[in-house]
Amino acid sequence: MSRLDELAVIERLTRSLSLGRSGLWSVGDDGALLAAQDRLVVTDAMVEGRHFDLRWSSWSDVGFKLLARNVSDIFAMGGRPTAMLLTLALPCNLAAAALDAFAKGLETAAARWGNPVLIGGDTTSVDGPAVLTLTLFGKRGSRLLARSGGRAGDRLWVDGPLGLAAAGLALLASGESHRSEVAVAAHRRPSPKPLLPGAMRAAHACIDISDGLLLDASRLASASGCGLVVTEVLPGREQLQPLARDREELAAWQLTGGDDYVRLVSASASPGRGWSPVGRLTADEGCFIEREDGTLYAAAPSGYLHHFGQP
Amino acid sequence: MSRLDELAVIERLTRSLSLGRSGLWSVGDDGALLAAQDRLVVTDAMVEGRHFDLRWSSWSDVGFKLLARNVSDIFAMGGRPTAMLLTLALPCNLAAAALDAFAKGLETAAARWGNPVLIGGDTTSVDGPAVLTLTLFGKRGSRLLARSGGRAGDRLWVDGPLGLAAAGLALLASGESHRSEVAVAAHRRPSPKPLLPGAMRAAHACIDISDGLLLDASRLASASGCGLVVTEVLPGREQLQPLARDREELAAWQLTGGDDYVRLVSASASPGRGWSPVGRLTADEGCFIEREDGTLYAAAPSGYLHHFGQP
Repeated sequence: MSRLDELAVIERLTRSLSLGRSGLWSVGDDGALLAAQDRLVVTDAMVEGRHFDLRWSSWSDVGFKLLARNVSDIFAMGGRPTAMLLTLALPCNLAAAALDAFAKGLETAAARWGNPVLIGGDTTSVDGPAVLTLTLFGKRGSRLLARSGGRAGDRLWVDGPLGLAAAGLALLASGESHRSEVAVAAHRRPSPKPLLPGAMRAAHACIDISDGLLLDASRLASASGCGLVVTEVLPGREQLQPLARDREELAAWQLTGGDDYVRLVSASASPGRGWSPVGRLTADEGCFIEREDGTLYAAAPSGYLHHFGQP
Repeated sequence: MSRLDELAVIERLTRSLSLGRSGLWSVGDDGALLAAQDRLVVTDAMVEGRHFDLRWSSWSDVGFKLLARNVSDIFAMGGRPTAMLLTLALPCNLAAAALDAFAKGLETAAARWGNPVLIGGDTTSVDGPAVLTLTLFGKRGSRLLARSGGRAGDRLWVDGPLGLAAAGLALLASGESHRSEVAVAAHRRPSPKPLLPGAMRAAHACIDISDGLLLDASRLASASGCGLVVTEVLPGREQLQPLARDREELAAWQLTGGDDYVRLVSASASPGRGWSPVGRLTADEGCFIEREDGTLYAAAPSGYLHHFGQP
């Protein structure tokens, strides 16, 4: 294990990642000049012990997921990733090999999603859990999607299964990861998908589901001035049923699990192949779940939120 | 002390800070659309126990300094602040009053430096020291300054005293803060200055001094392909002399102290009133300090760097 200073950290990171294309930025510089196209911006932090656990994710998984989470947000706006800033608060005893693995995972993710270039950031040490922040820039697609464009009567659609990552985390935590490679992979290396032209045309509003379907769908409904009905039968259910202890666990994974990184679109017609209906926006306020028999019951729009303050 | 979730944290922050002007971003949104002018970007993190110590800085000071540090970088590029992203990893037991004080300090700094608007960010909890990251956008000035434009023969100039903040921190740590209000204030609430038109015209290269004169001047010299001579007599010396134990402490504060947040400009003529000469760029490699009698001695370009890895 060698001892690194922050310049060596930056050198190791930039060895595998593309350097900034801006003539202004160079390794160690504090500022960058954005390209005229880099108009979309999202940012997302991952905290050791909160968003990742090194008992069941490698540093390479963490690097991959840090970019994937941000890519998911850019995709939900209808954009494509172009450039990134990376701010790392790292424990003093972090091994060089861990850093190399982190960079490798980030590089693998970057290669998958259009090779956004690293244009700057900040590196510091911390006497505590690692805090990794990525700020991702993107160029606009043919439209700019927001969560506020939904209309009463719209149906809601998602572009992937719900609850898979939550199930994967539960399996890892209980030592049963062998029961579903797919669920474990969904937790470790989420794979957000860009909106294809058909979905871009159909969508009235879009949001990335990262804190659970109920909470994020409520955010879209609320921003659109609508109420919400979510169906009980959701994509991924058949895959997850054999993994869940009971109906309650299955519902918790699918409705409030978090870490899905699928897109939720509000549209009057289907956004295209690969999209599954999960509910609808209503003119009346409130958040309801629709049983298979068509009856409704009220639900709290809960999901993953961080809490602060002395209880 | 009330218990807050992350939405309440965002609500408290945005109560005092201007909301994003972008129609796309609203409280809780993950993404923003940058204005066409927001082309400059800098980012800087502050870690509890590394960059600030709550024994001698208030949460309000910390909020102020977080923005000031980033403003200093934007000013060094010749720009003006316009918009910001704020990513906070906060201890679970953080009191609401601490958060309000932090927001108040940030707001005070924002009011001083052109009211950059908050356009987004991320809030999370951490089982450890707080990690506060600010990403600041800016619009370009009449020129875009980089650290790489210096020429052999240029003189080096700074727009403020050197070592004042380091002296302030030393006084706070030794319980002697009463000995210099100015030094203590320089540590708690740095006050970076924008480049005026005369300095913008004169400057061949510019860098923000945050890690100490020697290290940052070496970065400018190195990026410009030059060597470096720094004078032993530096601005702020007379103020600091009575506070320092000896010549070594004085030199350490002024040459390697860090946290100065003054701009270092490389130019053939003076950048204007308020600028003090501190050395020159040379065609020969190396880093030297020039004694009052004109003799030179070699110096390591040292300053504050974070270190990682098992020793």
